[in-house]
Amino acid sequence: MNPVVEKAWHWMDPAPIRDLAKRCQAAGADALDINPGPLKGDAVEKMRLLVEAIQGSCGLPICLDTSNHEAIEAGLNARKGKTIINGFSLEPRKLEKILPLAKNFEQPIIGFLLHADGSVPSNAEDRLNLAVQLFEQFERRGLDPEKLIIDPVVVPLIWQDGTRQAMDVLKVISMLPDLLGVPVKTIVGLSNLTTGRASKDKKTLLGSIYLSMLAAAGLDMVLMDIFDVETVKVARTCEIITQEKVFSWGSLR
Amino acid sequence: MNPVVEKAWHWMDPAPIRDLAKRCQAAGADALDINPGPLKGDAVEKMRLLVEAIQGSCGLPICLDTSNHEAIEAGLNARKGKTIINGFSLEPRKLEKILPLAKNFEQPIIGFLLHADGSVPSNAEDRLNLAVQLFEQFERRGLDPEKLIIDPVVVPLIWQDGTRQAMDVLKVISMLPDLLGVPVKTIVGLSNLTTGRASKDKKTLLGSIYLSMLAAAGLDMVLMDIFDVETVKVARTCEIITQEKVFSWGSLR
Repeated sequence: MNPVVEKAWHWMDPAPIRDLAKRCQAAGADALDINPGPLKGDAVEKMRLLVEAIQGSCGLPICLDTSNHEAIEAGLNARKGKTIINGFSLEPRKLEKILPLAKNFEQPIIGFLLHADGSVPSNAEDRLNLAVQLFEQFERRGLDPEKLIIDPVVVPLIWQDGTRQAMDVLKVISMLPDLLGVPVKTIVGLSNLTTGRASKDKKTLLGSIYLSMLAAAGLDMVLMDIFDVETVKVARTCEIITQEKVFSWGSLR
Repeated sequence: MNPVVEKAWHWMDPAPIRDLAKRCQAAGADALDINPGPLKGDAVEKMRLLVEAIQGSCGLPICLDTSNHEAIEAGLNARKGKTIINGFSLEPRKLEKILPLAKNFEQPIIGFLLHADGSVPSNAEDRLNLAVQLFEQFERRGLDPEKLIIDPVVVPLIWQDGTRQAMDVLKVISMLPDLLGVPVKTIVGLSNLTTGRASKDKKTLLGSIYLSMLAAAGLDMVLMDIFDVETVKVARTCEIITQEKVFSWGSLR
């Protein structure tokens, strides 16, 4: 949906993408998630263009965010450096086509806590069961458990059970390491929380508060808009509070 | 330290106190904490003035915040309506002089997780042990466990172990109901977190983020500045996320 990227694709011109990547890095991004959107026939070519453009301009890890396994594979083939595959779930096509790429390319992969039919779990117990099943799939295929990054799936607050689900996600994040017996990493897509019609200010406030709650629950990574200055400030401040190091007022950017 | 209150005391004039209480209520306070500060000889008289002035102007619960047991008793005697005693700990003088007032007047009381010598516990395990001891004191004296409100004691982030203690407090709040087997209530004094030299903006940011974390951990009450508009907005938004009710964007004040 980014017009810069759309134009770059139209002309197959890497320059604007390189520039955008540099700006993301300057704004404080620790990795870049590239989502080629609803891809048509040229998915492979576009993913390759994105990967090549970005890795030519900044050294950040890249997260390949698509459900098209051929595009992920093209990205992995073009890629030199750390890559995260985003991602798989218990959906049979993803287990069959996407999960093996994590093994073949020895890269971390995001696993979504979704049912095999793609539906969102309805409570914390459901999510924890799905996490165990994802983990079993991972181990059965001989994948390194430290390469699994779990996305518990944040749902919109405006859903009928949205606030309960928001609290469930916090509980699941805090319980996963004990449940699985490994320090499994977690990620969420923050903007999902505030899908719907509301002012930007309200969305920023709700997102920032929920991000603070997620950080306290032990969240490792967040997929968010790096140009949202307010929320980035909150994320950095969360790091100060949640990381067990000597505190310094000066470290608050 | 409030000049309005100081002046009211000097002239023993309830009008400015009444006015301040009304403004607190209008700003959204759910209860008023009255702390007469380091009291000299006239503690009893001052506490009575405060209680009478406030209950003449608004119907909010009043929290009697002093370590002077005679002042607390005077407040309780003057009081018609819900009162919270703030508070006691394992310090012998407080067990002997303040805790019995909760029983005699059948009012809720705040119990601080402090050692018998008044020192702050050094980790989560210490805090949980102290909570069990407070609870035992409560039960032994035949007090209703639902009238205990635990303050786990937030310490300044600038302390050497301040960030770890901040995370410990979150853990303790989330564990207390299971540990004690009753839905014990919790409260914290939020401003303790940012004691020290820092800009108001930094303090508000840190306080708001930590308040969000506390809310997710299950905190019931917070002692805070009701005129701090930003933090009040965060507190209200936390309520939307943490309370299991159908969400409405409109309910975000």
